[in-house]
Amino acid sequence: MALISPSRRLRRTPFSDGVEASGVKAYTVYNRMLLPTVFRSVEEDYHHLKEAVQIWDVSCERQVELRGPDATRLMQMLTPRDLRKMQVGQCSYIPIVDETGGMLNDPVAVKLADDRWWISIADSDLLLWVKAMAHGWRLDVLVDEPDVSPLGVQGPRADDLMAAVFGDTVRDIRFFRFKMLEFQGRKLAVARSGYSKQGGFEIYVEGADIGMPLWNALMEAGKALDVHAGCPNGIERIESGLLSYGNDMTDDNTPHECGLGKFCNTQSAIGCVGRDALLRVAVEGPVQQIRAIEIHGNKVPACDRPWPLVADGRQVGQVTSAAWSPDFATNVALGMVRMTHWDEGSEIDVVTSHGIQAATVWNTFWN
Amino acid sequence: MALISPSRRLRRTPFSDGVEASGVKAYTVYNRMLLPTVFRSVEEDYHHLKEAVQIWDVSCERQVELRGPDATRLMQMLTPRDLRKMQVGQCSYIPIVDETGGMLNDPVAVKLADDRWWISIADSDLLLWVKAMAHGWRLDVLVDEPDVSPLGVQGPRADDLMAAVFGDTVRDIRFFRFKMLEFQGRKLAVARSGYSKQGGFEIYVEGADIGMPLWNALMEAGKALDVHAGCPNGIERIESGLLSYGNDMTDDNTPHECGLGKFCNTQSAIGCVGRDALLRVAVEGPVQQIRAIEIHGNKVPACDRPWPLVADGRQVGQVTSAAWSPDFATNVALGMVRMTHWDEGSEIDVVTSHGIQAATVWNTFWN
Repeated sequence: MALISPSRRLRRTPFSDGVEASGVKAYTVYNRMLLPTVFRSVEEDYHHLKEAVQIWDVSCERQVELRGPDATRLMQMLTPRDLRKMQVGQCSYIPIVDETGGMLNDPVAVKLADDRWWISIADSDLLLWVKAMAHGWRLDVLVDEPDVSPLGVQGPRADDLMAAVFGDTVRDIRFFRFKMLEFQGRKLAVARSGYSKQGGFEIYVEGADIGMPLWNALMEAGKALDVHAGCPNGIERIESGLLSYGNDMTDDNTPHECGLGKFCNTQSAIGCVGRDALLRVAVEGPVQQIRAIEIHGNKVPACDRPWPLVADGRQVGQVTSAAWSPDFATNVALGMVRMTHWDEGSEIDVVTSHGIQAATVWNTFWN
Repeated sequence: MALISPSRRLRRTPFSDGVEASGVKAYTVYNRMLLPTVFRSVEEDYHHLKEAVQIWDVSCERQVELRGPDATRLMQMLTPRDLRKMQVGQCSYIPIVDETGGMLNDPVAVKLADDRWWISIADSDLLLWVKAMAHGWRLDVLVDEPDVSPLGVQGPRADDLMAAVFGDTVRDIRFFRFKMLEFQGRKLAVARSGYSKQGGFEIYVEGADIGMPLWNALMEAGKALDVHAGCPNGIERIESGLLSYGNDMTDDNTPHECGLGKFCNTQSAIGCVGRDALLRVAVEGPVQQIRAIEIHGNKVPACDRPWPLVADGRQVGQVTSAAWSPDFATNVALGMVRMTHWDEGSEIDVVTSHGIQAATVWNTFWN
């Protein structure tokens, strides 16, 4: 692996001092911000995430805030998911599409009030899209990036750790709901959510100044729980079938290709700019779709580019995320597979950077 | 320095194989794409750039293409620079602003035809802004990211190297003009431009398939010229006063604060969405502006965050790029300085990550 050159452009976060003190070994860049990828080793971090509890600096999940009379109208313009029944205090995973139905982001929407939303974004400058939409459509809404940096608390002991800092009320937070809870006199949105299947929370830390005090409080309270700094884990998220925007999908893909058709209410999401483009695909279905792909044989190299999927001498898709899974003792992968080969059990070949390996298509993920 | 974790999301380029074969040691991420930062060492690369010729993989300068009857109208909506006199075959450095006059990007516009433009972007997803503008304003224009990856040829021997591959006609290309020249049967835009003050060209390589053939042809032709793989050099670009979007300016800043007032024709750039917001600042001038800052004393650490500029116990600005310059035997830096202290020769302090160092403000850069 090469080194990453520091610069102001690759933004530090309110928790960077804690991340460095915890011995971060590698980063990726996500929304022009540093996102840790390795602390002890990817595999050690993986086992620990499944057994204990980790603090994740996911500040790179920047917020796009919409505020004003047209905030909800603009939200519905962005997504084919029908938002009308969504309540204040609720989070919702929403595909965001352009006017052709191409995916621009797959964020979590956070409804703070009837006229105030956060969009907790994946890796694209969605702020620019939302701001220009508000401008071009002359909507009565303020759009900006507030000083809010999410901190993840993930792993089977997350409830115990969070209860130690925020009180037992955290145990009552339902999945994809949030409560406003106090830390050092500040009310913070605490949601039961996160980019793993191990359970846990995301704290929307508003105000960079309380970043390190909160990090330290969690580290201190978690000593008996074997808390450790962690980060989204490439192996665990593939096992869990958690997609990554920019890896597993881009603006070339519709939500339906990404298996996100269940989050599209194409008939009722009136106002969504991509609705017309998606109506046909919603009825007929896509011709390719994301699948779990088991790659047999040796441990695969790092998946730093799309790997063609081949059958009978023709390309039938591509793998975009892959890793050796210690728990399942096989290579787990995600990829887009054409209809001709997406059935459970299809045997195809993957052209990795190190050669061809046999693979099997599955309809369910591992976790 | 930490490592960078590979993933498909951090896009490889048509030249990545050549970059790796040339022994790249470090990267940054720019427009979600890998941008090399070090080959031999930052200082060796620096000296070589000033003496010989380098091939730069600057694919990360992605293109936003505008095509159609409203292409030129949309271009003028994006920038306060008056584009009416710009000719086909011309390049133009244009600040791009939002409706409040905040900088969204500082790209080079390339006029391919009266109804076809490329915007060769700095580090922000300008594509999303331009697409949403086209949509919201219902303009008759297609906006997308074409398969075009710029390759830089920079250094005092750039003319000789380019002439060896494209013929002597390259010598006649004027600064910020381009010609369509042939390589392996493909017509490519070849511009006299680039992100250094050492002279050279940028080749807009259309079609990823000819990336490595062109890279190899340049490397082969340049053997006698001591050609080497290189990249934008942090020291040289600060000496030259070349700004970096995301480092030295963000959407918090107006073009006038960035010293780009000379590229704003705020009176005549009718249609620019940020024009009204900029009219007052164009008349009265900004209260802070980018300056060259010489930092005295020891070699400064990597500038990975804004360093406060302090005078009389008050903050009067910030440094956002800094490096030790071997040629000028001092620390060269760029920063935003308030009006009270921006005069030539002002003595102020810089609070670096390693402590306070004395500094002097200059009105001109080093190169």
